[in-house]
Amino acid sequence: MKTVKDYIRTIVDFPHEGIMFRDVTTLFADPRGMRLAIDQMLAPYVGMQIDKVVGLEARGFILGGAIAHQLSIGFVPIRKKGKLPGTVISEEYKLEYGEAIVEIHDDAIQPGEKILVVDDLLATGGTAAAGIKLIERLGGEIVGCAFIVDLPELGGRAVLENLSYDIHALCQFEGT
Amino acid sequence: MKTVKDYIRTIVDFPHEGIMFRDVTTLFADPRGMRLAIDQMLAPYVGMQIDKVVGLEARGFILGGAIAHQLSIGFVPIRKKGKLPGTVISEEYKLEYGEAIVEIHDDAIQPGEKILVVDDLLATGGTAAAGIKLIERLGGEIVGCAFIVDLPELGGRAVLENLSYDIHALCQFEGT
Repeated sequence: MKTVKDYIRTIVDFPHEGIMFRDVTTLFADPRGMRLAIDQMLAPYVGMQIDKVVGLEARGFILGGAIAHQLSIGFVPIRKKGKLPGTVISEEYKLEYGEAIVEIHDDAIQPGEKILVVDDLLATGGTAAAGIKLIERLGGEIVGCAFIVDLPELGGRAVLENLSYDIHALCQFEGT
Repeated sequence: MKTVKDYIRTIVDFPHEGIMFRDVTTLFADPRGMRLAIDQMLAPYVGMQIDKVVGLEARGFILGGAIAHQLSIGFVPIRKKGKLPGTVISEEYKLEYGEAIVEIHDDAIQPGEKILVVDDLLATGGTAAAGIKLIERLGGEIVGCAFIVDLPELGGRAVLENLSYDIHALCQFEGT
């Protein structure tokens, strides 16, 4: 029986030379793979209160949509700068080269709401950490962060766990 | 009882002056709104064979993830140029100013598969038409295209229906 990891394809040298890109589109395209991923991402949170799921642009939207539907809760996007039409709050974070900015609508989360953060891949944790800050600035309480893939060599899990967040990933890959 | 349309917020002058932006994030953020949208998008297709759902970047990913999960089928993304890591095929289409290119992985759909296309908003239909071409070039058969919002004044529905595609939208807004 194939595991979630078995459905993930590796593309060499994308988006640039030296990167082994872990491509979850082959997981999502498979009916069993897609359902397995969502079921396993939610397994650690069975019985816990979750008010909203926040998905990080763009592959986190696919997972977040499925999880919102499964749990009958609302979905909130965190997007790159300039994409959300309403009033937003922003967080800047460092990339390998330069900076990036992520945003959330300032009325998307109410104080005290329990939030699950989802994305396909945990690398350095920069995007996830910025997303968590946005949610907490709105008063949201982070229940956990669920990913499909963890790249432990890039250290994101360690960074987030040091901040006392509950981090789950379905599989790990060596290398960057 | 609120309808899907009641959950949608209008942002004036986004992304530029003169545009009334129909913002579905307020629909997605509401647990009842999110479920209502997915249930109503799927209602016309109950009992029909659908093998895969294709979501158009980026809000179509939220809907596509939920629908794939609901139907226990695979999800396939159509993305803007340069975002998909594997071998792709591309389609160019016209925007108000200039052109845009959308892409799909060339192995994401098998000949004969029945495909539902989803996005949040049908305007001129340019993106949807380009997406349909990509799917058909891979041998996929379009079961239908489901949207939350139709802007009839922009003519997208007429264009797609003239090509004999089955088009459903949950609500309409006047203006652009």
